[in-house]
Amino acid sequence: MDYTELDRDLPRLEQHIGYTFRDKSLLKNALTHTSYTNEMRSKNIDHPSNERLEFLGDSVLSIEVSKYIYLHYPDLPEGDMSRVRSSTVCEKALSRFASDIHLGAFLLLGHGEETSAGRRKPSILADAFEALLAAIYLDGGAEAVTSSLLPRITAEVDEVIKCGRTKDYKTLLQQIIQQSPGDILEYVVVGESGPMNNHTFYTEARLNSNVIGRGTGRSKKDAEQHAAKEALKLFGENENA
Amino acid sequence: MDYTELDRDLPRLEQHIGYTFRDKSLLKNALTHTSYTNEMRSKNIDHPSNERLEFLGDSVLSIEVSKYIYLHYPDLPEGDMSRVRSSTVCEKALSRFASDIHLGAFLLLGHGEETSAGRRKPSILADAFEALLAAIYLDGGAEAVTSSLLPRITAEVDEVIKCGRTKDYKTLLQQIIQQSPGDILEYVVVGESGPMNNHTFYTEARLNSNVIGRGTGRSKKDAEQHAAKEALKLFGENENA
Repeated sequence: MDYTELDRDLPRLEQHIGYTFRDKSLLKNALTHTSYTNEMRSKNIDHPSNERLEFLGDSVLSIEVSKYIYLHYPDLPEGDMSRVRSSTVCEKALSRFASDIHLGAFLLLGHGEETSAGRRKPSILADAFEALLAAIYLDGGAEAVTSSLLPRITAEVDEVIKCGRTKDYKTLLQQIIQQSPGDILEYVVVGESGPMNNHTFYTEARLNSNVIGRGTGRSKKDAEQHAAKEALKLFGENENA
Repeated sequence: MDYTELDRDLPRLEQHIGYTFRDKSLLKNALTHTSYTNEMRSKNIDHPSNERLEFLGDSVLSIEVSKYIYLHYPDLPEGDMSRVRSSTVCEKALSRFASDIHLGAFLLLGHGEETSAGRRKPSILADAFEALLAAIYLDGGAEAVTSSLLPRITAEVDEVIKCGRTKDYKTLLQQIIQQSPGDILEYVVVGESGPMNNHTFYTEARLNSNVIGRGTGRSKKDAEQHAAKEALKLFGENENA
């Protein structure tokens, strides 16, 4: 496939992405691997590689994922937020997102990469996916990213948190309780002990005033997380949920 | 200064920032250092620290700086873009931005930090500055960041590039030429040599058809950068410009 032939295939890719570009050259730039750029350069043709877009896409990904985590997991501590973000933006996850939209089939590669299965290399796919995010961002703004590729990525965020790689028990419990409108969940401090520097809080999670979990912790938030963790067992969520 | 007294001082800080918050609690959250949170917790008062905002602010900073570099330095290669971004978002630079708006004076600190000059610690100032960026972003969107604090940061980007820590000679030359409207700058390939894998381009920078610089390189872009570098000397820009 060469640069001009690619035009014919773009609508199919745009369908996979869920976004139609105003400026198709941005999309084509995102699909141009540096091996293709180098090959064309030797023929005196200038097709810039997707490396600059990839640089920008790294930040587009970061702000969108960070904002989602910040707004949707209000009780997740900073350290866990970082871990979730790292899991979601790693090469392995990004190359999977790329595969989901068949991005590999649309890449412009040099002959060397073409013959060594470059279309399936995780690093090439992950980089192209980031470049694609930047192209969408430049073409249609943050809203276009949010409405096209972001849902795939935030589903991964939810999965990472749910699989217990990082745990926000309060949010998980809240999600379950919300399925029964009218039910009221609250956390109540029922006791405290210890000196100011080494204080312990005792908290109960209560559903419609019934105790469904108890927890202790050095902060109220920790104690609530532990109470929520205990309560989750009542709802059939196992220890690793 | 305590949490309630701070209210009185917020308008003064907002003036330094160049942005008035709709939701003042976001601003106060950004000003709350973890040492203050811990101190209040021991009194059973919950004032969340700025750590979660700092997590988000790191990404806000990254996307705004990356976008600026991408759009304003179209000839800067990816590696240099990364270096410029790193220089601009490092603790040293961020704590300087924080000092410029007197952020230290408005922080809520625990007694320990208060007595050990915490208001002037670069790490505390840099973190609070990132948290502040996130607070502005959540309160007024990316536009609010762009119109308030971003100009300070992009001025630093320009400075980093201009001081030659990273060099985009073509953009620098263009900026000088633009001061004389009507002048036309162009780059012309005047020769090529070598095999496809080890090609050399010979390029001239021409101002109104007069040669003002010559350069060679493995790509046209490299050759143009070298021609621009030579041309800059004519305009009194020294080797490190």
